[in-house]
Amino acid sequence: MIQHPAFPVEPWSLRESTLHRDMLAQTESIFALANGHIGWRANLDEGEPHGLPGSYLNGLFELRPLPYAEAGFGYPESGETMINVTNGKVIRLLVDDEPFDIRYGQLLRHERVLDFRAGTLSRQADWVSPAGRTVRVTSVRMVSFTQRSIAAIRYQVESLDGPVRIVLQSELVANEELPPASADPRVAVALEAPLESIQHGHEGGRAGLMHRTRRSGRSLQVAMDHQLHSDADLYQSYETRPDLARLTIGGRIDRGQVLRLDKYVGFGWSRTRSRPALQDQVEGALSVAVATGWDGLAAEQRGYLDDFWGRADVELDGDDEIQQAVRFGMFHVLQAGARAERRSIPAKGLSGTGYDGHTFWDSETFVLAVLTYTMPDAAVNVLRWRHSTLPGAIDRASQLGLRGAAFPWRTIDGAECSAYWPAGTAAFHVNADIAAAVTRYVDATGDDQFDAGTGLDLLVHTARLWHSLGHHDAAGKFRIDGVTGPDEYSAIADNNVFTNLMAQANLRAAARSSMVHPDRAKELGVSADEVAKWQAAADQMLVPYDEKLGVHSQAEGFTNHQVWDFAGTRPDQYPLLAHFPYFDLYRKQVVKQADLVLAMQTCPDAFTAEQKARNFAYYEALTVRDSSLSACTQAVIAAETGHLELAYDYLAETALMDIADLEHNTKDGVHLAALAGAWVALVTGFGGMRNRHGQLPSFAPRLPPALTRLTFTVTLRGRSLRVSVLPDRASYLVDDDGPAMEIMHYGEPLSVSNEPQERPIPVQPTQPRPSQPPGREPVRRMPLRGQLADEPLPLADQGQKA
Amino acid sequence: MIQHPAFPVEPWSLRESTLHRDMLAQTESIFALANGHIGWRANLDEGEPHGLPGSYLNGLFELRPLPYAEAGFGYPESGETMINVTNGKVIRLLVDDEPFDIRYGQLLRHERVLDFRAGTLSRQADWVSPAGRTVRVTSVRMVSFTQRSIAAIRYQVESLDGPVRIVLQSELVANEELPPASADPRVAVALEAPLESIQHGHEGGRAGLMHRTRRSGRSLQVAMDHQLHSDADLYQSYETRPDLARLTIGGRIDRGQVLRLDKYVGFGWSRTRSRPALQDQVEGALSVAVATGWDGLAAEQRGYLDDFWGRADVELDGDDEIQQAVRFGMFHVLQAGARAERRSIPAKGLSGTGYDGHTFWDSETFVLAVLTYTMPDAAVNVLRWRHSTLPGAIDRASQLGLRGAAFPWRTIDGAECSAYWPAGTAAFHVNADIAAAVTRYVDATGDDQFDAGTGLDLLVHTARLWHSLGHHDAAGKFRIDGVTGPDEYSAIADNNVFTNLMAQANLRAAARSSMVHPDRAKELGVSADEVAKWQAAADQMLVPYDEKLGVHSQAEGFTNHQVWDFAGTRPDQYPLLAHFPYFDLYRKQVVKQADLVLAMQTCPDAFTAEQKARNFAYYEALTVRDSSLSACTQAVIAAETGHLELAYDYLAETALMDIADLEHNTKDGVHLAALAGAWVALVTGFGGMRNRHGQLPSFAPRLPPALTRLTFTVTLRGRSLRVSVLPDRASYLVDDDGPAMEIMHYGEPLSVSNEPQERPIPVQPTQPRPSQPPGREPVRRMPLRGQLADEPLPLADQGQKA
Repeated sequence: MIQHPAFPVEPWSLRESTLHRDMLAQTESIFALANGHIGWRANLDEGEPHGLPGSYLNGLFELRPLPYAEAGFGYPESGETMINVTNGKVIRLLVDDEPFDIRYGQLLRHERVLDFRAGTLSRQADWVSPAGRTVRVTSVRMVSFTQRSIAAIRYQVESLDGPVRIVLQSELVANEELPPASADPRVAVALEAPLESIQHGHEGGRAGLMHRTRRSGRSLQVAMDHQLHSDADLYQSYETRPDLARLTIGGRIDRGQVLRLDKYVGFGWSRTRSRPALQDQVEGALSVAVATGWDGLAAEQRGYLDDFWGRADVELDGDDEIQQAVRFGMFHVLQAGARAERRSIPAKGLSGTGYDGHTFWDSETFVLAVLTYTMPDAAVNVLRWRHSTLPGAIDRASQLGLRGAAFPWRTIDGAECSAYWPAGTAAFHVNADIAAAVTRYVDATGDDQFDAGTGLDLLVHTARLWHSLGHHDAAGKFRIDGVTGPDEYSAIADNNVFTNLMAQANLRAAARSSMVHPDRAKELGVSADEVAKWQAAADQMLVPYDEKLGVHSQAEGFTNHQVWDFAGTRPDQYPLLAHFPYFDLYRKQVVKQADLVLAMQTCPDAFTAEQKARNFAYYEALTVRDSSLSACTQAVIAAETGHLELAYDYLAETALMDIADLEHNTKDGVHLAALAGAWVALVTGFGGMRNRHGQLPSFAPRLPPALTRLTFTVTLRGRSLRVSVLPDRASYLVDDDGPAMEIMHYGEPLSVSNEPQERPIPVQPTQPRPSQPPGREPVRRMPLRGQLADEPLPLADQGQKA
Repeated sequence: MIQHPAFPVEPWSLRESTLHRDMLAQTESIFALANGHIGWRANLDEGEPHGLPGSYLNGLFELRPLPYAEAGFGYPESGETMINVTNGKVIRLLVDDEPFDIRYGQLLRHERVLDFRAGTLSRQADWVSPAGRTVRVTSVRMVSFTQRSIAAIRYQVESLDGPVRIVLQSELVANEELPPASADPRVAVALEAPLESIQHGHEGGRAGLMHRTRRSGRSLQVAMDHQLHSDADLYQSYETRPDLARLTIGGRIDRGQVLRLDKYVGFGWSRTRSRPALQDQVEGALSVAVATGWDGLAAEQRGYLDDFWGRADVELDGDDEIQQAVRFGMFHVLQAGARAERRSIPAKGLSGTGYDGHTFWDSETFVLAVLTYTMPDAAVNVLRWRHSTLPGAIDRASQLGLRGAAFPWRTIDGAECSAYWPAGTAAFHVNADIAAAVTRYVDATGDDQFDAGTGLDLLVHTARLWHSLGHHDAAGKFRIDGVTGPDEYSAIADNNVFTNLMAQANLRAAARSSMVHPDRAKELGVSADEVAKWQAAADQMLVPYDEKLGVHSQAEGFTNHQVWDFAGTRPDQYPLLAHFPYFDLYRKQVVKQADLVLAMQTCPDAFTAEQKARNFAYYEALTVRDSSLSACTQAVIAAETGHLELAYDYLAETALMDIADLEHNTKDGVHLAALAGAWVALVTGFGGMRNRHGQLPSFAPRLPPALTRLTFTVTLRGRSLRVSVLPDRASYLVDDDGPAMEIMHYGEPLSVSNEPQERPIPVQPTQPRPSQPPGREPVRRMPLRGQLADEPLPLADQGQKA
């Protein structure tokens, strides 16, 4: 938990005004830059000290054998692990032969600012060397949104107290030494020296290193070029070795004189292309970047972000801290998704190695829920990536004795990398989550070409999976036995409500799309009989309901299980998975993360309002939120069931997940789905937006007492719908002069044009606040309004996330 | 599967008249000698060729780290693995400088005989060397039942065709090279060179090697001494190295002249004792053995076995092949249990490294079911061993958040070594199985001292486990959720009938014994309140029953699951675990091994006769017997429910498990529980013997058509009860002139004295034979009556065990 008075509240940036060495790893994640293709952790320019050095390329992984003390059929033999690629960030500085290192000498000032509109991380450090020379180091770093293969640094050193001899070493470093790995299953393995040198060299002021991953056989080229700005008399020299390229610049600068170096780093990797092709690709990208120049790149970056914020910003009045946090979250979501371009979006984006750089169901379920309505092109690229892995998913289904496609629980490149099947392979709901992302995208965009092609492929193959995974019992009900739902404190259960309802929607969507696109469906071998079977399975889907308790049972038998001994569980025993065996968690009523409650969000019509209220109260008392994928869902259903203050508390938890390091593992990377969850909590929660496949988008907005206004924009059918919510009314506006857009407001149809349409918000009776397990209540925070957080944040560690 | 015309039918021995090199590994297991302390696989004297060289000491293991690709709380970090210790069997022979090796030259004759009454493995080979010299090599080997630390070999070589130069090398070899390990989870890992030399040396015709295991820190001393009998002029020399001790004997023998060497090998190991103490212990044992001499040892061995067979033999008329097989099985059970002396009985005895030398629940459930009634002292030693591991089991329970003791699923020394918890830790029934073995032993022996001490400790701690593992639901029923029963094709299920009924018996037995021994119970902190809670839990135990189908559900929900697609499963896809993922097996109705059916055997009063019949028919259709721990139970319940021919088929399967290599893994060691199962099928099945805690032993004998007589002896309260069953009547006799023994015959009390009491066997109506999954029917075999099996055995591979 970040307890330092770390970040002052500012609307468009995240600022760290003092360097806390014990928080280096966390800030490396928080300040990480990425464009979906390249990821740079916010390691200091000079390389050391560091928490975890990290430069990543989306989709570039190494294979590692997965060990099993007891093997089993169908267990994956090797796992894909994101690797730390050649580090192009390093610029070392010597001041009169003393290396600039914040651990030595005296740091007079150190500030870093992540600017959400500029898309840069800037740093300023005033440092007195052990020998007493004072310099100011300023750097600005970006990973370009517009030039996919390019990252750049403007590095500047100024003498503050007199003439000084300066040496700059700008480097590319491969196979950096990494800190030892942790045993925590949420952390990645560290592969030692994963890169094998192929070639290295420099020519005409440009240097490059080419490597290959040992097992996965990917080739990687990283090259750099520089522009030096100084009126001092300087010498330059280049050298390269297999794992090092270095430009050395030396000379003397006077007091007030500035040495500025613009560094451009180009990246490329491929599984198939030849060395010359790869080298040319990177050289080409680098040439464009150098020609664009630093100022040009910076202008492109700002333009890109201006456009993004224009379409995607969420404004709220009444809580500046959450305002900042939601923009921080959106910025990271953008960084992860912007240029993924038919690659996956890992759970940590490209900000750290947590979970080995794998993507999970949360990409489709949480991150795409945001991107679909803010950057639909990014959303569809993720779905196209999934589609590109379809052949492997078909093979996997076949290996598992199933038809259709079984997408992996965790992967980089499409191969199942989960080595613990009860919470991996058995979590089949990932397939329905992908299907739901397809229908959400199609509903939001009306992209018929996608619907008839990639979309139908995905829907048909996942529907086939469900039909072969379940069966009709003697009474005709369609059962899906022995699977694992979202809640990872239960596993291998029969008829998980979330899974069954999502499968039902998946089967129906496949049936519907097959009928809409009969020719394409025929190509896929879909017959009328198959469609009828899907519909029958959907119509007869078993949804366990406990008549005695009057609530849905998360899965069959769940409500008969013993309730976890919350009173006997100490605060330091959370997260439970680190202190209790799975066997004990699985057989008791304790919920790690929203499961039944998530079903009420994603399948809103499967529950009555009364059931939603009762279910929510029942599961609140069981849910410990040991996962970051929970608070946003609880916010949504709390808002829907009238618990607006509780929803507000959950909003804060998801929005501040990384800024406050609530899960204590931000060091391994940001929690992308939780950050997306801040948008979800605001738009789906307080905005009440719901998507029902094939129906009009609907809104049922309602603000918590602390907020006085909420405004958000969603992209629907290529147009921007702007929703503004006040305590008693909401207004809707389309920002173009096209035809009226049909939506629903509290169940009533509404035609929206470029004239604001205002509608009242119905009064809702106050509900008693549901209780959570003792000690697991969300923190009640007071909204911060423009207050500078130089005192400890109110959201302090009160033991609610161990 | 052994398809060779391997073993002729003989009543008291198993003979191999030709050496089949492709069956070496199987015969090494089948002909293995052991006394419960030392185990020698039947490797050829000259060491090579071999399937798997093996010398084992019960309880001596090395630790190996257990790897997890995804770690979890409570997972064992290291596993115990039985190691191949210093090999004392090796006697190499050179004939005119040519090594005697059956792969070269010409083998004129090769015979091996395992003699169940002599307790020896003898071998005779007539061999022509590549250079044309013919010799006869004869060896007889024993592992002494009477001298626990001693194994011995009489080795003799005779020239058949003229003077020849002979060199004998009698060796101790440590750290033998082992064949590479298999990926099959049922096979052991091979640890390379697990022994570290401490000292070696020879003195006065005796040589020894002392080693230590690297991680587990056990010291091991193996020493040898020899007696040479020959009138030839021979030289001798000793040499030792860290991993080798060698006596070389050389000289020339004439045609018909014999060189005979008696080799005595002593073994000792310890975790705590000093080197001199360990050395002295082995030297002492060796001195006694040498003083006893080969003939003395052989006479002791026969005397021991005469006594055993007098108390334990089972005779049957009508099937000589099964007669031989049941004695073979009893001989191996004796070998595994005789001198275990507070050590465990591994699943493979000491005949191979299968399952890493671990003991499982089958020791208490199957092997002790035999030993309790034939060698009660061996049975109680196993229970005392379990008791010695109680502190670790209490710690393990505490780690799992439970009270009482949680005994390990698999172990050598008491630590949980299961690395796959759904079929390991979750299989809590092992604790009730131990408790059942306690009550069985107490009922059979009336051993009050054990009952009040070790027995009560075990019952109380296991009862506490059950009480903390289950809970009373809203309706008051006592539920045990999320555990795994005997059937390993289901896991983590709620209210497994076998587990719940066994837990019920365990709770009741603990309550009963606590009331019988109030002072001892008080010492254990047992209060009247605790006893009342145990009784309430037992009385309210939930036992799932499917009213619609009229059968018990193996666990809650089981009968709702999809039935496995047996018709679509090819014969080569068995065992299913090697061809289908656990996830698919777990969620469908398919049974690896008797589970509900075993409950009907061990808890006979929990089911009506009609329920037993219906349940048996239902589960027969689902049971594929992919485990060797099934056929004997199916034999017992088939016999009880009137399917005598089916029971007879299952008897054959369990009895011939290793002789016919039905599971294709006899090479890793014999299937001890299946071999014990032959006795169980005969005595519990056709003899109808049942034990109900605190009640009279009962019999309900009935023969299958093929058998004309079955006679067996069981030890009850230290006395021998002889039961003789004919097709229409049974007679009972106690072989001493003590007071009458009270038993039950078909529900009627009967007083048995040393005058045979004869009673009729009620006529039972013929029942339709239940069906098994297609292709998984037991083989219908014709009984062999004294026929020499030089043709293929009728029980040929018909695809019924892949």
